[in-house]
Parts: sequence; C-alpha cells; structure tokens
Amino acid sequence: MKDKPKRRVPRSVREREIVDAAVHVFSQRGYRAAVVDEIAELAGISKPMVYLYFTSKEGLFVACVRREARRLAETFREAAQRAGGSPELRLWAGLSAFFAFVAERRDSWVVLHRQAPEQSEAIAAELAEARRTVMAEVTALVASGISDSDGGDHLGEFEAEFVAHALVGAADAVTDWMERHPDSPPDGASLRLMNMVWIGMRDVLAGGTWAPQAP
Amino acid sequence: MKDKPKRRVPRSVREREIVDAAVHVFSQRGYRAAVVDEIAELAGISKPMVYLYFTSKEGLFVACVRREARRLAETFREAAQRAGGSPELRLWAGLSAFFAFVAERRDSWVVLHRQAPEQSEAIAAELAEARRTVMAEVTALVASGISDSDGGDHLGEFEAEFVAHALVGAADAVTDWMERHPDSPPDGASLRLMNMVWIGMRDVLAGGTWAPQAP
Repeated sequence: MKDKPKRRVPRSVREREIVDAAVHVFSQRGYRAAVVDEIAELAGISKPMVYLYFTSKEGLFVACVRREARRLAETFREAAQRAGGSPELRLWAGLSAFFAFVAERRDSWVVLHRQAPEQSEAIAAELAEARRTVMAEVTALVASGISDSDGGDHLGEFEAEFVAHALVGAADAVTDWMERHPDSPPDGASLRLMNMVWIGMRDVLAGGTWAPQAP
Repeated sequence: MKDKPKRRVPRSVREREIVDAAVHVFSQRGYRAAVVDEIAELAGISKPMVYLYFTSKEGLFVACVRREARRLAETFREAAQRAGGSPELRLWAGLSAFFAFVAERRDSWVVLHRQAPEQSEAIAAELAEARRTVMAEVTALVASGISDSDGGDHLGEFEAEFVAHALVGAADAVTDWMERHPDSPPDGASLRLMNMVWIGMRDVLAGGTWAPQAP
C-alpha cells in the first residue's frame, strides 16, 4: 500500500497558524515566560520549523506585533472610511471599531498593549512603528476635523498632534476601564470618549476656551 | 596620628542616595541592562552595602518605583490642594504640576512610564499600586467636579472612573508629545488638556451630548 500523499500546506498558511498560536501563548504567558515548544505544539508544527520560519522567539514576537498592529490599524482605517461623512463621524466609527477589536481580540491587544520598550531593540522598534502608524491615522482625522470646523487650518499639525496623542492615550487607558467593567458594551466607551473629547474640541474652536480663573 | 572619625551617615540618607543613583541608572540603561555596580559607584557606596539595604536589583527597582510614584502622587495632590477652589481649578493645578514634574524629572518619569508589567511580579504589583493611587486621586476630583456641575451625583463613580481613565491615559500619552516638542512649555499641555476634556465634560453635563448622526 502506498503512502497517501501528504497535504502540502503553503508557507503563508503555516506562518499564519504559527503566529496565531504565538499571539495566544505570548498573551497568556508574557514574552519572557513564553516558550517556543508550547507555541509549536499549539500550532501542530515542529519546533525546528518554527525557528526556520522566524529565526528566534524574538523574531516570532516581532511578527506577532507586526501582524496585530497592522490588523488594528486596518480595522480602524476601514471603519473610518466606511463611515464616510464628517471627520467626527469617521473618528467615532474608528474608535468604535477599536474598542470592539480590543473586546473581541483580547490576546491581540495584550500583545500590543503595555509591552516593555526595553525587551529588545527589534521589539521596541516594531512597537514604536505601530504607535506611529496609529498616531498618523488619528492625527490626519483630527486635522481634517479641525480645518472643517474653523474654516481654515490655523491650529494646524501641532495642535492636531496634541489632540491625537491625548485621544490615543485616552483610548488606551479606557481599555483598562473596559476590563474592569466587562458588561459595559464597547460602543458605550467610544460614545463616552467622543462626548468628552469632541464636544470640547468643537467648543474650543468656537471660542469656548477654558482658562484657570475662578468660575 | 589618629584616624579622623568617619562621618556617620544615617541609614535613611544612604538609602536616599542609593535610590537617587538607581533612578538615574535605570532610566538611562533600562531595568534589564542596568547593573548594580554602576549604581553603587554613582552612589559612592560598596556593592554589598546596596544588597544589604535592598536585597536585589529587583528590590532596588521596586524601591525606585515606590518612591517616585509617591513623589508624583504627592506633587499632584499638593498642587491640587494648594489651588483650592472648584474641582476644575484643582484638576488644572494638579495636571500642571504633573507636566512640570515630567519635564523636570525625566529620569523619574522614565522609571514609572511604560515599564513592562511582566518584568517581575513584585515590580508589576508596585506599578499597579502606583497606577491605582493616581487613578483614585483623579477619580475623586472628577467625581466632585461632576457632582458640583449637575447638582447631584447621578453620573456617579462609574462615569467618574471612565473620565479619570481617559484623562490619565491622555496625560501619559501627552508626555510623549512633550518630548517631541521640548520647547513647548509644560503649562501649555495642561491648558490644552483642560480645554479638550473639561469643556467637553461641562457641556455634556449641560445636555450638549454628542451622537453619531450626520451634523
């Protein structure tokens, strides 16, 4: 009896399966405690094959960060584009998609969130790149929102960058709040954040500035 | 000729000198790359003495996080109390003090900011505790601001906690923006943040909610 021909799995599929397993294990164990044996076993592949594809545990982690950061950025971007309309509607759609992503894909978010920049230079560089991509997306939306509202762009890039940093930082921290309130729907988080931030920004542009005098 | 009597340095002073040196070295090198030899040399003390006081590099790092987190929380609290008046003035004063702290004490901030929660359980616990302290301070200010504004407390702890998370996250991320714009004064950052957040919150409480309909 002849051996049945082995199913040949394309390299891209194998890689995806390994990264899936790695995201899960890194998320559960943390980068340092995770071992490649467990990842290989979960992916149903031999350990040498994992090293052949990704060189090292570090290389594998970088691949995880890269893929999940790209997915998150695409999720945000596609939701914003699909929503169309005014920048604030696009921003709201993007934020809602972000919070839904975090709620549904806890493992992905853990791999991206609050990793040590000092774990290794390659990892730090990948995380910084991911952060820059998100910041650029949000800055662009905010900048077009600002220039829509004030009929010009006198606040410009400098202020848009400030708002984007504050907004991205707020959204990051709100994921911790979501973890403390798992029954609260992710859509509520994006609505709250828009209420906090966008109304403030709109009113500031309309001249309603806050100044530290006694009210 | 008799030896001059050695200057006896109280333990508390020695400990302070060691932690000063450690904050500097950890900030420059990162936790993993930092070596106790360099810290001991900078503090002008022998390495065994450092271990006698702090047991391990981990113990020393925990002591750094604890001291700097306490300083930061006290800086925020004292500024807020000194400002007195309405919760928004106290929050503004606290935020200004926070940004000034970050601008002046870059080393302290690096030790507190974006550390890996997975470096060790003791370090993660200390960082989580520091975060809880800050969050409690800010939540209390926001909660009293909310109940001042709406004449009651129907939004309550749940919403105050959300706003506090968003605000603390925004402030964290704005320190990265400050690093990119070193010539921009720290006071500008707190004013911008108050404008973004407080005006929005005030108007939301006055009924000016944002909803995702086309404007």
